[in-house]
Amino acid sequence: MVGIETSAGHTNGVTTNATHAQSPQQQLRNPYAPRYSDFLNNVSNFKIIESTLQGEQFANAFFDTKTKIAIAKALDAFGVEYIELTSPAASEQSRLDCEAICKLGLKAKILTHIRCHMDDARIAVETGVDGVDVVIGTSSFLREFSHGKDMTYITKTAIEVINFVKSKGIEVRFSSEDSFRSDLVDLLSIYQTVDKVGVNRVGVADTVGCANPRQVYELVRTLRGVVSCDIEIHLHNDTGCAVANAYTALEAGATHIDTSVLGIGERVGITPLGALVACLYAANPEYVKSKYNLPMLREIENLVAEAVEVSIPFQNPVTGYCAFTHKAGIHAKAILNNPSTYEILKPEDFGLTRYVSIGHRLTGWNAVKSRVEQLQLDMTDDQIKDATTKIKELADVRTQSMDDVDTVLRVYHSGIVSGKLKVGELDVLDELLRAHKNGKVVTAASS
Amino acid sequence: MVGIETSAGHTNGVTTNATHAQSPQQQLRNPYAPRYSDFLNNVSNFKIIESTLQGEQFANAFFDTKTKIAIAKALDAFGVEYIELTSPAASEQSRLDCEAICKLGLKAKILTHIRCHMDDARIAVETGVDGVDVVIGTSSFLREFSHGKDMTYITKTAIEVINFVKSKGIEVRFSSEDSFRSDLVDLLSIYQTVDKVGVNRVGVADTVGCANPRQVYELVRTLRGVVSCDIEIHLHNDTGCAVANAYTALEAGATHIDTSVLGIGERVGITPLGALVACLYAANPEYVKSKYNLPMLREIENLVAEAVEVSIPFQNPVTGYCAFTHKAGIHAKAILNNPSTYEILKPEDFGLTRYVSIGHRLTGWNAVKSRVEQLQLDMTDDQIKDATTKIKELADVRTQSMDDVDTVLRVYHSGIVSGKLKVGELDVLDELLRAHKNGKVVTAASS
Repeated sequence: MVGIETSAGHTNGVTTNATHAQSPQQQLRNPYAPRYSDFLNNVSNFKIIESTLQGEQFANAFFDTKTKIAIAKALDAFGVEYIELTSPAASEQSRLDCEAICKLGLKAKILTHIRCHMDDARIAVETGVDGVDVVIGTSSFLREFSHGKDMTYITKTAIEVINFVKSKGIEVRFSSEDSFRSDLVDLLSIYQTVDKVGVNRVGVADTVGCANPRQVYELVRTLRGVVSCDIEIHLHNDTGCAVANAYTALEAGATHIDTSVLGIGERVGITPLGALVACLYAANPEYVKSKYNLPMLREIENLVAEAVEVSIPFQNPVTGYCAFTHKAGIHAKAILNNPSTYEILKPEDFGLTRYVSIGHRLTGWNAVKSRVEQLQLDMTDDQIKDATTKIKELADVRTQSMDDVDTVLRVYHSGIVSGKLKVGELDVLDELLRAHKNGKVVTAASS
Repeated sequence: MVGIETSAGHTNGVTTNATHAQSPQQQLRNPYAPRYSDFLNNVSNFKIIESTLQGEQFANAFFDTKTKIAIAKALDAFGVEYIELTSPAASEQSRLDCEAICKLGLKAKILTHIRCHMDDARIAVETGVDGVDVVIGTSSFLREFSHGKDMTYITKTAIEVINFVKSKGIEVRFSSEDSFRSDLVDLLSIYQTVDKVGVNRVGVADTVGCANPRQVYELVRTLRGVVSCDIEIHLHNDTGCAVANAYTALEAGATHIDTSVLGIGERVGITPLGALVACLYAANPEYVKSKYNLPMLREIENLVAEAVEVSIPFQNPVTGYCAFTHKAGIHAKAILNNPSTYEILKPEDFGLTRYVSIGHRLTGWNAVKSRVEQLQLDMTDDQIKDATTKIKELADVRTQSMDDVDTVLRVYHSGIVSGKLKVGELDVLDELLRAHKNGKVVTAASS
C-alpha cells in the first residue's frame, strides 16, 4: 500500500449560524438530523444485549468454556450492558458454562435464552443468571411447521413461565419469533397480556431477515403505544438491513438492541456490534464514547473471528482494512485539508489511523504535495503538478508502491536542483528515471 | 461440515383468508407490507447503475483493460441497466478503456462519471458513452475544503455542462455530493434549476455514509415533489446502512440505485449489488427474477473478488458460505417441514442449495430423523430421540462430522436389530461404539 498516514485529528473549521439548541458540531454533521428532540427517540438512550455467546447457531461456532469466558470478559470490558448465553437446556456443558460465566462477577448482566417452556425455565433460574429471555414462534409459519401450538396455548404458557421466573427475583423478557410475519392483532394482544403480568421487556424479532426500516418503525412505534415495559429488538441480516433496522427501532422507541460480534448467528447472522456502534456513534459520538471502550472493538472482533475461524470482512465498518483509507484525487485533497469532509467516524476514537493512498491513476497533486512535504523536498506547486502527471502515467500501467512514488519525487527534485530538468520536460524525467534505475543515481545535496 | 442437503423447493402450505388484492403469497411473506400500492413506491420499478468499474477508488482496485471488459460483460449478462465507468479525464488509459467498453455493444447503457467541469465533459462526450454522470460537492465542507466554489458558480457551471452534454444527444445526470450535509434550500434550488434545463436525472449522494433510513426517505420524498426528472441515489456504507437506505429511497420515489459488486468503493464502499438484489427480491421475487440472472451473482462476485484480491465476506447475503446453512434444533426441524419458515430467499433461485447441519450440541431429533431416513435405517421416533441424546453428548465435547453422526446412527440401529441394545441403554451404546471404533464392527443385515 502506498500512502500517507495522517495523525491530524478532526477539526471542525466550518462556521455556521447555528441558532438551535443542538451543538454547532451536531448541526454540521447532518442538517437532516432532527432539530428538536423526539420523546420516542432512544438513539441516545439504549442498551446492548450482546448475543455472540448465544450465537452457536452460526455454522462454524463451537465455543469451549475457556473461549466463552474470554469472550464474555472482553465484551464486559468493552461495556455492553447485557451478555446473552446459549440455553442451559441445550446441553449439559451449556448449563455448566452458563454457571461459570455467572460466577465471573462481570458488570454486564448475564441472560440466557430459552424456549417458552417450564422445563427450560426451571433449569435456567438455577444457573445464577440475572435474566431469562423467553422466546416462542408466533407466525403462522412457525405455529404450523415448528411447534404446532395455537395462540391460546402460547399465551397460557407465557404467563406461567413469566410468573415462575419473576417469583425467583430474576428479570424476564418475552419475545415472539418471526414477529414481522405474525398476525398484528395476535402479536399486540400477547404483548399487552405479558406487559400486564409484569414482564420486564417484550422482544420483537425479525427471525427471517425480511423487515425493512419503515416496517420496523411502524411496528415498534405501534407497540410503544401498547406496552409500558422495555422493548428489545432482534434483527437478522439476510438482506443486509439489520443495522439500519436497529437504528430505526431506537427512533421508534425500542430500548434494547441484540447484537453479535461480526454479526455471527444463524445463516448470515444478526446486527453486528461494530457496525451498530459506528452507526450510533455517527449520531451521537459523545454518548457512545462515554458508554463503550471503542478502541477494544478491533481486539474483540479478532478474538471472535479466530474462535469461529473466519476473516474480518474487507468492507467491515470501522475495522475493515480500508475503512480509513482514502484514494481518489479529490477525496484525498479534502481529507488532507479537513478529515471531516469525508469521514463521519474519527479513526483515533477507535484506536485506528487514517491512510491516504497516492500511487494510483486517480491521484491528485494535493495528495502528492503532502508526500513532498513529508520527504522535505523543496518543490513549487508547478513542479509537484508536473511530477504528479508522471506518477499518474506510471500508475496507469500498474499501481505504484510508496517506494516508486518516492523515487519519482526524489529524482524529479534532484533534476531540478542539478539544473538538468525543467517543468514540462517529462522526456528528460524519463531519462533521469532510467539512469536512476540503472544505478547511475543522480543525487542532489538536499535529498 | 455435517449436514443434509435438501433439494425440496419452498412450499407455501399455509392457507390464509386473503381478502385483499395482493396475492396470498405476498400476504404470507409479510403482513406489514403495504396492503395497497403507494404511487411513490418504486420498489418494483427501478434501475441499477452498476459502479464497480467506477470503483477504482477502492484501495485494492486496479483493473486492467481485459478485467474491465470481463466485468462489464458479466454485469451486462446479469442484467444491470447501466454500467458506470471511471472518468476518461482521470488518465489516458481510463479514456481508452471507456472507448473500448462502449464498442462492446452491450445491452446495458454505458455511463461515465465526471467532475462538473467543461474540460472533463468535452473528453467524456467523445468516448461513445450513452450518458454522463456529473457530480459536484455542495456541502459546506466540500465547498470550503475541496473545490472552494460557491453555489452561484456551481449552478452556472452545472447549466453549462448539462447543456453541452445534451447538445451531443447524450443522457446527463447532475448530482450533488455529500447531499445529506448540504443546505436543504441550496440543494433543492440547484436540483430545480437543472431539472428546468432538462437534465435526465438528479443524483442524491450520501458521500460520507452518515444518512439513516428516515432521513433518506424525507430528502428523496421532498425532492420528488420538486423535480419531474428521474432520481438516482448513491449511498456509502460507513455505518452499514447502505442497503436499507437504498430500499427506503425507492419507497420515497427514487428511480435509480448505484451499486458495486461486493460494495467495493472508497473506504468501506457503497450499496453492494448482491445484498440489494436480495433485499428487493424479498419484496418482490417475481419482478427481480424477471430482470436479473440471479444464479450469475456468485460468479460475478468471484470475478470481482479475484480482481481486487479480497475474499467473499463470510456473512455476505446470498453468497456467504453459510447463508443457507441451518443449524439450531428448532430451526432445522421447521426448515425440513417447510423452508419458508426460516428462509425469505429461495436458494435455488440463486443457483444455490440449502444445508441443514446436525452434528452439534444444539441439534434436535427432527433433524436427525431426516438423516436416518436418508440412510434408510428403520428406527422408531423413540430410538431416534435416544440416539440424538448420544449425538448431543458427543457434540458437547467437539463438533461431530457427518461420518461421526452416521456411525452413531448405524451402530445404534445395528444394536437394536441384533437385540443387543434397547432404548435408554446409553451405556450399552457406548460399549458398541467402542467395539466399532476398535474394528469389531457389529453389522446388521439391513445396514
